[in-house]
Amino acid sequence: MQAGKSSVQFDKPPIVTAAASIVGEKEGKGPIGNCFDQIEPDPMFGKKSWEEAESELQRRTAEVCLSKAGLTPEDIRYLFAGDLLGQIVATSFGVGSLEIPMFGLYGACSTMGESMVLGSMTVGAGYADRIMAMASSHFASAERQFRFPLAYGNQRPLSSTWTVTGCGSVIIEKADGYSMENGNMPLAKITGITCGKVVDMQFRDSMNMGAAMAMAAVDTILQNFRDFAVVPGCYDKIITGDLGLTGRKILCDFTEQAGYDLKGIHMDCGLRIFDCENQDTHSGGSGCGCSAATLCGYILPRLQSREWKKVLFVPTGALLSPVSFNEGRSVPGIAHAVVLESI
Amino acid sequence: MQAGKSSVQFDKPPIVTAAASIVGEKEGKGPIGNCFDQIEPDPMFGKKSWEEAESELQRRTAEVCLSKAGLTPEDIRYLFAGDLLGQIVATSFGVGSLEIPMFGLYGACSTMGESMVLGSMTVGAGYADRIMAMASSHFASAERQFRFPLAYGNQRPLSSTWTVTGCGSVIIEKADGYSMENGNMPLAKITGITCGKVVDMQFRDSMNMGAAMAMAAVDTILQNFRDFAVVPGCYDKIITGDLGLTGRKILCDFTEQAGYDLKGIHMDCGLRIFDCENQDTHSGGSGCGCSAATLCGYILPRLQSREWKKVLFVPTGALLSPVSFNEGRSVPGIAHAVVLESI
Repeated sequence: MQAGKSSVQFDKPPIVTAAASIVGEKEGKGPIGNCFDQIEPDPMFGKKSWEEAESELQRRTAEVCLSKAGLTPEDIRYLFAGDLLGQIVATSFGVGSLEIPMFGLYGACSTMGESMVLGSMTVGAGYADRIMAMASSHFASAERQFRFPLAYGNQRPLSSTWTVTGCGSVIIEKADGYSMENGNMPLAKITGITCGKVVDMQFRDSMNMGAAMAMAAVDTILQNFRDFAVVPGCYDKIITGDLGLTGRKILCDFTEQAGYDLKGIHMDCGLRIFDCENQDTHSGGSGCGCSAATLCGYILPRLQSREWKKVLFVPTGALLSPVSFNEGRSVPGIAHAVVLESI
Repeated sequence: MQAGKSSVQFDKPPIVTAAASIVGEKEGKGPIGNCFDQIEPDPMFGKKSWEEAESELQRRTAEVCLSKAGLTPEDIRYLFAGDLLGQIVATSFGVGSLEIPMFGLYGACSTMGESMVLGSMTVGAGYADRIMAMASSHFASAERQFRFPLAYGNQRPLSSTWTVTGCGSVIIEKADGYSMENGNMPLAKITGITCGKVVDMQFRDSMNMGAAMAMAAVDTILQNFRDFAVVPGCYDKIITGDLGLTGRKILCDFTEQAGYDLKGIHMDCGLRIFDCENQDTHSGGSGCGCSAATLCGYILPRLQSREWKKVLFVPTGALLSPVSFNEGRSVPGIAHAVVLESI
């Protein structure tokens, strides 16, 4: 049912029954490297181009997810998926081969949030018994798309983030009739969602995307508080996607101005996946794959074990393109929120 | 409720209560030029770049749609929107300023179908009383993104299509409680949807996108027939997005092989919006805006007047990017279908 201005509260919360994550070598060497299902040492994933590599990363992650759930592609009614590349080609060429009816999404690095929001709405409404939601990014395909040729070896400002090579995929299904036999304990339930809006603060620095996205995160988080009449203390963690060091500071400052102290419960996937100081990733990790892989490898297991009871998962996206940047335009942000609770 | 493998049949069909379309000068001179709300003679839409022009086209179309419905942006709970450009920047910079919570979509030229499918599902489930769905394209921003600099004046093969400068926007809302006072007759109701899957026939010719998309249209249309247990005769029209002359032939040939004769009831928006022979558009019109504007200007009014009782609207998308094309990859297709019925 509708909650407040932008949110939905599920009468029958859909459940997350499986999750898979695959990351690259750098992510595997990070502080949560042992949480992921696979660490792929070959950045090309055995393919001939960075874009094909990202497609292969998506395809393999979907297959690991299906395999962990003991399912085949035919068991999934709809797929909600996207990536960072123009015309989301990593997705079209990656999971297209699974032949699952698909909704292609673009929410920049917020895409894992968007896919889970729409996916859980679809299951919650009874339009599907089971869907898959996923998102990916690849350091090299993103650098080629948005920044400089890798061989150029450009310097990066400290405010810049490092695009995660990673993919996360979840299966969301209706709770009614789900069998917990054989120890098939669901990872979490999705009790609500908040859809974000485009927030354009006229930031123009594509090397400081954390700042560009922070106000979108502020907007969505405060909207979530209002729509569900909750306070930060209702959540064990409020987890943004890839604000990094610069964005986290802005988020905490502005939510404090609104009367909320998030410092103690805020976590940012971009700051969790890398050891910024020792891995030369400057402000932190970014990319759709950052929040997606961290969700699947790190967050959902903590909900399953009931270490955390309730978290607000808020992937954040910077809505720029190479063309918009070259034309001197601003970098608007967007953030979508998913309320995840332990079973 | 779920219908067959990929479809949804609405217990309470959402209704389309307003629609708006704005097109460029060439579209305005075409055979259905008098159907659109506005024809803009300035291809720059008063802006400084083609991308900004497309954003302005989207923003203005949304405003005309709201104005026709007597609504403000605050009355719309969610916006489902997309365009052809990398990272859908026409949308982010266009309708972002409306401050409506937004789901960014990428389905190439099938985006109007995708936005209406997800939008009607959202209203049908009661997650929103009223949403807006829209999609746009612009000839010059698409040429810059996918093909050649305009000033180069390249020759185009006869199989190529002409990207429509146009945008269509609809308001979809729940039927319960809708007031038909003051002659507010809804345009149509949405009784079902069929979500398409990626179909890759290994076509590699980006100058013949009709062929690349035709098999996706075949797949979705046949799936619709199976899921709803209907035959072509159940529809007054089956309307594809932008298959053009080459794609239409493939569609009719392959559906005939499957035992269905679509020739009499098939219409293609790309063939309707332009007079291919006299407007030098070769195989026909294309782009998200082609099916979106034709829907809003031409199709919905015919459902409102009950000239047509039931149509299957099937926008078709070619999932290529400049990068995927330059890397020699194929052009997969996708098509999403919306069942529209007169009230």
